[in-house]
Amino acid sequence: MEQTDVQGLLLRVLEVLHKSGALSPVEDSKVIEFHQPQDLEEILSDFSLNESCSESRLLELVEQTAKLSVRTGHPMFFNQLYGGVDKYGLVGALVSEALNTSAYTHEVAPVFSLSEREVIKASLKLVNFKDGDGIFSPGGSISNMYGIVVSRYKKFPNVKQTGLFSLPPLVLFTSQESHYSITKGAHWLGLGTDNVVKVKCDDRGRMIPSELESAIARASSEGKVPLMVNCTAGSTVLGAFDPLEEVAEICQRLGIWMHVDACWGGTLLLSAKHRNRLAGIEKADSVSWNPHKMLGAPLQCSLFLLKHGELLKLCNMAGATYLFQKDKMYDPSYDSGDKSVQCGRKVDSFKLWTLWKARGNLGLGALVDHAIDMSIYFLEKIKGRPGFKPVLAEYETTNICFWYVPPRLRDQPETEEWWEQIHKVGPTMKKKFTEEGVLLLGYQPLEYRELKNFFRMVVTCHPPRSKEQMDRVVELFEKYGSEL
Amino acid sequence: MEQTDVQGLLLRVLEVLHKSGALSPVEDSKVIEFHQPQDLEEILSDFSLNESCSESRLLELVEQTAKLSVRTGHPMFFNQLYGGVDKYGLVGALVSEALNTSAYTHEVAPVFSLSEREVIKASLKLVNFKDGDGIFSPGGSISNMYGIVVSRYKKFPNVKQTGLFSLPPLVLFTSQESHYSITKGAHWLGLGTDNVVKVKCDDRGRMIPSELESAIARASSEGKVPLMVNCTAGSTVLGAFDPLEEVAEICQRLGIWMHVDACWGGTLLLSAKHRNRLAGIEKADSVSWNPHKMLGAPLQCSLFLLKHGELLKLCNMAGATYLFQKDKMYDPSYDSGDKSVQCGRKVDSFKLWTLWKARGNLGLGALVDHAIDMSIYFLEKIKGRPGFKPVLAEYETTNICFWYVPPRLRDQPETEEWWEQIHKVGPTMKKKFTEEGVLLLGYQPLEYRELKNFFRMVVTCHPPRSKEQMDRVVELFEKYGSEL
Repeated sequence: MEQTDVQGLLLRVLEVLHKSGALSPVEDSKVIEFHQPQDLEEILSDFSLNESCSESRLLELVEQTAKLSVRTGHPMFFNQLYGGVDKYGLVGALVSEALNTSAYTHEVAPVFSLSEREVIKASLKLVNFKDGDGIFSPGGSISNMYGIVVSRYKKFPNVKQTGLFSLPPLVLFTSQESHYSITKGAHWLGLGTDNVVKVKCDDRGRMIPSELESAIARASSEGKVPLMVNCTAGSTVLGAFDPLEEVAEICQRLGIWMHVDACWGGTLLLSAKHRNRLAGIEKADSVSWNPHKMLGAPLQCSLFLLKHGELLKLCNMAGATYLFQKDKMYDPSYDSGDKSVQCGRKVDSFKLWTLWKARGNLGLGALVDHAIDMSIYFLEKIKGRPGFKPVLAEYETTNICFWYVPPRLRDQPETEEWWEQIHKVGPTMKKKFTEEGVLLLGYQPLEYRELKNFFRMVVTCHPPRSKEQMDRVVELFEKYGSEL
Repeated sequence: MEQTDVQGLLLRVLEVLHKSGALSPVEDSKVIEFHQPQDLEEILSDFSLNESCSESRLLELVEQTAKLSVRTGHPMFFNQLYGGVDKYGLVGALVSEALNTSAYTHEVAPVFSLSEREVIKASLKLVNFKDGDGIFSPGGSISNMYGIVVSRYKKFPNVKQTGLFSLPPLVLFTSQESHYSITKGAHWLGLGTDNVVKVKCDDRGRMIPSELESAIARASSEGKVPLMVNCTAGSTVLGAFDPLEEVAEICQRLGIWMHVDACWGGTLLLSAKHRNRLAGIEKADSVSWNPHKMLGAPLQCSLFLLKHGELLKLCNMAGATYLFQKDKMYDPSYDSGDKSVQCGRKVDSFKLWTLWKARGNLGLGALVDHAIDMSIYFLEKIKGRPGFKPVLAEYETTNICFWYVPPRLRDQPETEEWWEQIHKVGPTMKKKFTEEGVLLLGYQPLEYRELKNFFRMVVTCHPPRSKEQMDRVVELFEKYGSEL
């Protein structure tokens, strides 16, 4: 084993990443070099673990990794609700990886505790929670679980000690269009997925307030306890925003906790132009937001924000004396650990801090505005264009959903059989795009609306896209779809 | 805003980190430059977020961050169950940060899905689970929650749908010495902290099997359902190993799930010499292990391992069609997302993969052996040395716990008042060490044994310590403690 020092080793890694083109993928490179998993296993047969390898061999394997990984920072990557990473976010990530510590106490994370406080303060300002508090969590699913747990603690503080066994069923309300983490959370937290009521949506994927109200009445009449309404601000597939003001009115009137899953759409709060899409969020009790999505903070970066700041610690504290000694040499209110369900906790705040610090509120807002402009540009471009059939006539977040109709299927009655053929366009074109490495974007059916497979193109802040790149996507559809 | 490219920017960050000494802290540097949090807030007053800053200013703030952060990789850092980072682990961390993707599907993480499979395969081999499966989770607390949730699903699969409301209380058994994550998990998962039975320990901090058996009988006689026994392999404070063989016999006989929290001590499985400390772990149903602790994988790196591999997906799946399409172009069994409670999931496997690949099984075993040798060396050195009073006569993991008795308190009867003075030695000396920046190590009381504050010195694999460094700790105690 050679003895390169850390600095030397990391420099070599950076060089490998740079040379491979993975650090800032250019448009004429491939977004992915696709192999079937079984074939990839053969190509990467030296990935098995047992014997040691030399540093040079390790770097060769890193090179192979960079070459064969998906380039999420490629201009033609529109596949997920995240994409390329903000370079200033990457600065913070590198620093926190190298300094390797846990966020639980000020004692071992003095600077990172402060950066966490600053980012939480700035985020609370975005949602306008005046005496709020917050915590970084390892992702949106867990942030949403925080919402459920805190709402339960508020209503039934004894659950912390005695569990759910003697209680009537507690019910969560969320839209049909909402993210599956609410269901997963209901399972883990002991509520059960049957106690998640999926409230009907309008044709833009937004929860219908009157449907919510009937659903709540129905649950109450069955002897169940309505615990929490989860609103979605930017849904996963359609990008829909639930009507926060109207839901807030219902929640306040009926005394039900209002949580907003703004993991995806919360980033619009940074834009003076678009933040009104989330009007009413300040009336919520809690909010989840993932800066690792649209904004390009390195994965993972998720925040749980709470209006009733004092509840976070009360709810989650265990008071472990080996970590939170009462006779510390500093004010232990600077320790965040007792607010978290975790013990050791990765420092996720610093990369958001570097990103925010370097770009400022205005810079972040400009990035968001640009991403939205590009998605609107794309939507307008495909509207009425032969072969493109948008799922929604208006843009919602930066998800642009559409069917692609190959020439041979155009101008035909939309029979069941016709739709079956459209359904296959998704996997067929995705396969072509992926095998050629020219474009990566997703497709899915939408079962609650009985919609057949359609494409979902997601525009994120990084890399900032150009109109020419959006045009290129249209061209690729027309090129690859012409002979389907 | 200057326009440095990613590569250039990261090179400058590496240089700043290197120059600050934070990448490989040397012994004669400070382990921490301590400031009271309020003072630090003043020093870092430019940490507030609003306006953008230049790249050079950002790098100055990074420099300040490196200077004022705790150096967990310093030879005199013995404060937590983690420490310095393995440089090969850091290679993997840098690569996965730069390639920024989520572990949920093979589609967006082709190479990382395979590295995850390889690491899980190698880890299952360590615990000897033949048809097992596993998943990376964001830390030991959540890995332990996986154990509770899967055990519950196995016994009461309907809980997933209907919740806990109609069930008799489900009870978890764990030792008095175990980690508080079991209690936090019981709260979150709806079982309630009252349904966590703390089983009595022997004088080395190990669960007493006969006490476990009586506790189980007691719960059953009260109409409760014994769900899971959590064994600790390497406890947080004393480093104790519960008797796995004996607990396994009880669990098998009574049909109770056996989980092993090996977050700390699991790393001993890598050592041919010391792995017998965990004899019987192959009889467990599930195991948690944190390579980010003793082994020095970058935080966060935690594994949940399950003997009954097929249960993981059954338990946790939600089958979101926008992510796990049934008509994918590749075999979707390569997608790991439905095994997880998370949706987006940070790639934590690759850094463990690079670390393991570079060092090999033997190299990792040698690092572990050396860490244990150094902790035994330290324990032997302080045994019988004036002023040092070990809490346990034998080493357990690499936690060495001891009281330090200043000269004026030596050779005196150990009255209550004497202990009150010893109790204050912990915070007093910690304050001195920290303010001088010469040593960082922890102290705590152990309330269930009514033990007053004692020091806990934790030896991890990085940096590998020398005998001279262990001697240095003794010298520092004698130097700073002589006039207490």
